[in-house]
Amino acid sequence: MAGSKFAYVKKFELPDTLLPSTFMVLRLDGHSFHRFSDQHGFVKPNDLRALQLMDHAAKSLMEEYKDIGLAFGESDEYSFLLRKSTALYNRRQAKIVSTLTSLFTSSYVFHWPKYFPDVPLQYPPSFDGRIVLYPSQREVRDYFAWRQADTHINNLYNTAFWALVQQGGQTTTEAHAILRGTVSKDKHEILFSNFEINYDKIDPRYRKGSVFVRVETTPEEPPNELSTNTDAASARPIVSEESRRKEEKKKKKVATQIELLHCDIIRDEFWDKYAHLMRD
Amino acid sequence: MAGSKFAYVKKFELPDTLLPSTFMVLRLDGHSFHRFSDQHGFVKPNDLRALQLMDHAAKSLMEEYKDIGLAFGESDEYSFLLRKSTALYNRRQAKIVSTLTSLFTSSYVFHWPKYFPDVPLQYPPSFDGRIVLYPSQREVRDYFAWRQADTHINNLYNTAFWALVQQGGQTTTEAHAILRGTVSKDKHEILFSNFEINYDKIDPRYRKGSVFVRVETTPEEPPNELSTNTDAASARPIVSEESRRKEEKKKKKVATQIELLHCDIIRDEFWDKYAHLMRD
Amino acid sequence: MAGSKFAYVKKFELPDTLLPSTFMVLRLDGHSFHRFSDQHGFVKPNDLRALQLMDHAAKSLMEEYKDIGLAFGESDEYSFLLRKSTALYNRRQAKIVSTLTSLFTSSYVFHWPKYFPDVPLQYPPSFDGRIVLYPSQREVRDYFAWRQADTHINNLYNTAFWALVQQGGQTTTEAHAILRGTVSKDKHEILFSNFEINYDKIDPRYRKGSVFVRVETTPEEPPNELSTNTDAASARPIVSEESRRKEEKKKKKVATQIELLHCDIIRDEFWDKYAHLMRD
Amino acid sequence: MAGSKFAYVKKFELPDTLLPSTFMVLRLDGHSFHRFSDQHGFVKPNDLRALQLMDHAAKSLMEEYKDIGLAFGESDEYSFLLRKSTALYNRRQAKIVSTLTSLFTSSYVFHWPKYFPDVPLQYPPSFDGRIVLYPSQREVRDYFAWRQADTHINNLYNTAFWALVQQGGQTTTEAHAILRGTVSKDKHEILFSNFEINYDKIDPRYRKGSVFVRVETTPEEPPNELSTNTDAASARPIVSEESRRKEEKKKKKVATQIELLHCDIIRDEFWDKYAHLMRD
Repeated sequence: MAGSKFAYVKKFELPDTLLPSTFMVLRLDGHSFHRFSDQHGFVKPNDLRALQLMDHAAKSLMEEYKDIGLAFGESDEYSFLLRKSTALYNRRQAKIVSTLTSLFTSSYVFHWPKYFPDVPLQYPPSFDGRIVLYPSQREVRDYFAWRQADTHINNLYNTAFWALVQQGGQTTTEAHAILRGTVSKDKHEILFSNFEINYDKIDPRYRKGSVFVRVETTPEEPPNELSTNTDAASARPIVSEESRRKEEKKKKKVATQIELLHCDIIRDEFWDKYAHLMRD
Repeated sequence: MAGSKFAYVKKFELPDTLLPSTFMVLRLDGHSFHRFSDQHGFVKPNDLRALQLMDHAAKSLMEEYKDIGLAFGESDEYSFLLRKSTALYNRRQAKIVSTLTSLFTSSYVFHWPKYFPDVPLQYPPSFDGRIVLYPSQREVRDYFAWRQADTHINNLYNTAFWALVQQGGQTTTEAHAILRGTVSKDKHEILFSNFEINYDKIDPRYRKGSVFVRVETTPEEPPNELSTNTDAASARPIVSEESRRKEEKKKKKVATQIELLHCDIIRDEFWDKYAHLMRD
Repeated sequence: MAGSKFAYVKKFELPDTLLPSTFMVLRLDGHSFHRFSDQHGFVKPNDLRALQLMDHAAKSLMEEYKDIGLAFGESDEYSFLLRKSTALYNRRQAKIVSTLTSLFTSSYVFHWPKYFPDVPLQYPPSFDGRIVLYPSQREVRDYFAWRQADTHINNLYNTAFWALVQQGGQTTTEAHAILRGTVSKDKHEILFSNFEINYDKIDPRYRKGSVFVRVETTPEEPPNELSTNTDAASARPIVSEESRRKEEKKKKKVATQIELLHCDIIRDEFWDKYAHLMRD
Repeated sequence: MAGSKFAYVKKFELPDTLLPSTFMVLRLDGHSFHRFSDQHGFVKPNDLRALQLMDHAAKSLMEEYKDIGLAFGESDEYSFLLRKSTALYNRRQAKIVSTLTSLFTSSYVFHWPKYFPDVPLQYPPSFDGRIVLYPSQREVRDYFAWRQADTHINNLYNTAFWALVQQGGQTTTEAHAILRGTVSKDKHEILFSNFEINYDKIDPRYRKGSVFVRVETTPEEPPNELSTNTDAASARPIVSEESRRKEEKKKKKVATQIELLHCDIIRDEFWDKYAHLMRD
């Protein structure tokens, strides 16, 4: 074949397989989004439209990639958890990180007009992506806790900062100076005393970020069954729940849906309720 | 700080620095573009609008990333050459591959309406990216030769195939059967005898793909100079071209522009003319 | 400094940090040991001296590297388990694999005369090493089970093979032919019927391989104390065993010793008894 | 097979192929050789026996691995250049670095008694190894220049230091104090004025380190042939030297030998003379 004498160049593509049976977290970050948000007039401290657009792009990614069970987003970043046994693209790192970052970006641009009908996109935004491997559940939990703790810290600061500027009439320099050295409690106090803002009453979307979880939906019973039983599991009492689940997965009968939450993901409650996210 | 007890999870982000002083080729490929092109009614064998959109996205990438000196595109793929000394993102692999793939994708979606004014984008397309390292010029040349040889093979086949189907009234199965086992000369003959198509007269864009080269632009002479000389180099005859080039780069005075070609990049002529693409 | 203009070449040394909190298994294999064992007249199917020398080298490695808690050896190979939190050489892969392989090799050559007093070493033997990461205990157990199952298969085959050759007078070709297609039970039968060898009575060293475990030693009681002893454990009876253990480790008071076993490491019993090997 | 249910653990062995067509430098360093040299009474500043033993081990490695064309050693370190096209162990990093470090170590211990007949080895020494990739000849040259410049700096310092201590009767603390802040010229002066040592007359082995080069040996002419000789080279006078060389390599007729030098490898002269070391 004509190209065959050049084909040796393919040998320079080296394998980049990620360690099996290890959780993957994909984190995406907006590239130069400080400038991007200025240019597109994002509302401060939080632009609901921009956050909803991020959520939309994240949900699109989860719809396309079933091995993502959990996602967490704040500001211009999003993290996705792939189950540890995922065989997506044979666990090739560059393939996964590039394709998923690409689809997220694509969705962001594609859905822009829905969330910003009056703000034309001025130039194409971009995101960077990275994959971090975590060997155990503990580290996965702590990763997501780390991101949500970060959300809290940033949002409390930004809320106080912009209240001082927008409602208090301070310059941005003054606002930074006022907040310098303050601890969490001080910022709560500043918000409450000066602006009658009870931080804990602020929309949890802003305080907690966005959490997408994939949950299995109860399959509908076929109609007109004599059994009045509406629970698939009890209809086959001998089979264990787990083996039933596996079997259904094989048959690709397990439907899942993706739910958006704005809840605490640091404490046990969330992880107890959605324990299946760590299972394989 | 609240999040500090979780911050240890950052230690799982391992360095992925690419070998210094080595050429990087970034190749992007459309993800499931067979389906995508069907859904959006791409003209066969080549859709000019789609190719021009790819070119536009590629050019955007080169405008943003000055260390890309050369790009080659065909069909739904594009390859970019970064100079071997590039320090882009400290040569971190995931950062480079994800950010550049993201920006390309973003540009593709962003500029879609310019090229497909009557074809609304139905869903967000995506691309995968990979970086391949080449230690020497020889391999870089052969890489690009490999892609252009591939372009030739594919386009000749597709041109013959779709002529048989569109003009010859064959089914796609019949067309494949006719072409099975044929060599290049046979396909030329089929095109010429049956459809009066001289393959070599077909638009070089389709036969050769798209080649973007970054070239330095001659700085404009200040007007009303007595010297009628319009060539910067000859104006300072003692200084070598190379040292002048370096000096200007230091002063960031060197303007470059990106030119689109549809020429042969397998033979020496191209590489002799654009020898600077391999220099650093 | 004189060398400074060349020092840039250090930048080509790229980091090769291994994923944190992940078990490392280092496996060493004799390089061309078929030839080596022939040249040095190793007894077939098992040479006790050679196996004891391997064990000695393995023990030396564990004495030097306290983060190795478990080792398993058979024939000319040895596997070592490093605890998952080990910070040995900052988890740099090449440093660990090369240094440990080097010390094992060095010990092997150094101690050779003790085990082969009448067989001078004819040329320097070598080993290759590799590190495999395992994210969880399950995989570590299965790794060691895999090696011991391999020991069983190989040793049963070799025992039957060499009995046929040495005692049965078969050629090696005939012996292979006889064993072709036989299952485990057949080989037991061949050994018992023809040579009155009860395979299960063979030295467990050959059937099970060598297992080194690191165990904590009970600190000796100071003699003649009137129970007002100063031993950390008895002095603070309320403190849990685990916290006591940790504290002692901090104080570097925990002495360990390395025990050689030839036991089953596939079933639970071993892992229940030595559960600390997986802990960190 | 009995072990098959565990065999999945093999999947955790990830490929670690090194970039093709790139020079590999393997550098070995003695592990804790400060202590080792003290324990074995190495002569200061240079122990000829120890250096010759290092050289012997290095030569053994080159005899075993024909793809090593060049080596450079000083003190307790050695660097080896593998030709850029080497396919040794399919360019698997851990395999190469571990096996070669192992053989070097093994040779070192094996040959110890030849060089230290009266000094029994007290414990097994070890070495660490690393592989660094260099894409071009320039970097390879600069790597070796870097090591030889280091040799010069260290040896000049050590020579002056030990002269002050051994002949000048200074304590080691005093000797360090005297040398602090001195430049090269000062140390030459100290040696000459105080001890009548002309540094440039010292054995080049100490000043330049050890250089092993692999050179092709001229095949001996068969004696008394009447020019109808069967020697491949003279039989086909038209064939170029290079193609002849390649052909002979195929036929494995090219004999090479390894020469020990103590020469400058920083200047062009060496690289001009041994230009074949960079060729492939």
